[in-house]
Amino acid sequence: MSVDASTPTPVDVAMMSRALELAEQAAAIGEVPVGAVIYRGETILAEAHNLRESDRDPTAHAEMLALRDAARHMASWRIEDCTLAVTLEPCPMCAGALINARIPRLVYGAPDPKMGAVDTLYQICTDVRLNHRMVVIRSVEADRCATVLQAFFQARRGANPPGKPTPPNDE
Amino acid sequence: MSVDASTPTPVDVAMMSRALELAEQAAAIGEVPVGAVIYRGETILAEAHNLRESDRDPTAHAEMLALRDAARHMASWRIEDCTLAVTLEPCPMCAGALINARIPRLVYGAPDPKMGAVDTLYQICTDVRLNHRMVVIRSVEADRCATVLQAFFQARRGANPPGKPTPPNDE
Repeated sequence: MSVDASTPTPVDVAMMSRALELAEQAAAIGEVPVGAVIYRGETILAEAHNLRESDRDPTAHAEMLALRDAARHMASWRIEDCTLAVTLEPCPMCAGALINARIPRLVYGAPDPKMGAVDTLYQICTDVRLNHRMVVIRSVEADRCATVLQAFFQARRGANPPGKPTPPNDE
Repeated sequence: MSVDASTPTPVDVAMMSRALELAEQAAAIGEVPVGAVIYRGETILAEAHNLRESDRDPTAHAEMLALRDAARHMASWRIEDCTLAVTLEPCPMCAGALINARIPRLVYGAPDPKMGAVDTLYQICTDVRLNHRMVVIRSVEADRCATVLQAFFQARRGANPPGKPTPPNDE
């Protein structure tokens, strides 16, 4: 049976569900809810959620933390033979990090109209001018991924109605 | 006296000299020689050089390490009122991180024809579609910055002539 390279496998879908759980954990501590998982076959090598506010670190997006953790486990900056699944389309920083890490496969959930750098504003992960490209599987559990983000921002707007100062974590 | 926003100040040039010293330190330990300094006025807040090989971390470019260190010192992911000077045009990851950190001003040395994401392949730092932009000062000590890189790669080619395996740190 041939496999369509643009279609998620059952493992991809299961990993996206895990990434969604991580996103929910982020929301519970006031972080913009994005989760990421790096896996080889059915084995999770690293997982993380956004920690920008908690760590006070502008680079602490879910994908970056998962990449760094996977690299530690593999004792190499090359993260080969793996897939990264993330609930939101990666931003320029994270798309660039996926290139730098030589990740061969990306699965993402909701598109990001403001910062998306895989399809929306840039196509960094498939740019033939760069020294690496990857397979990209899009819109996996996109509605669930978008709903988690929408619920987070709606709740925050409710807690910060117009006229109150904007909270600092404006993604 | 008006100041041309596209011209480096004497402080910018001095900081680039410091970034070049850091790049030389990187070369001495086998890292691709790129150095970065973050400063406010004449005060250095953070400095770093590339540590990808030593740290086995695909995100350990000079700019990323300097941003994370500056954020630690400022106890905030927003790195405001600062300039980052770096010897090589930032790649997509680092240009995206500068946006995410809200850095208001970037000074860079040599252009990067393969990965440059500020002017060469992308214009991430000045893209009006993103939620932040910065002043960019280009080609500061560009020849010196390029020479450090060329000398490093020439020496490595000498140590690894054609036919021998390629070393792993192919930037």
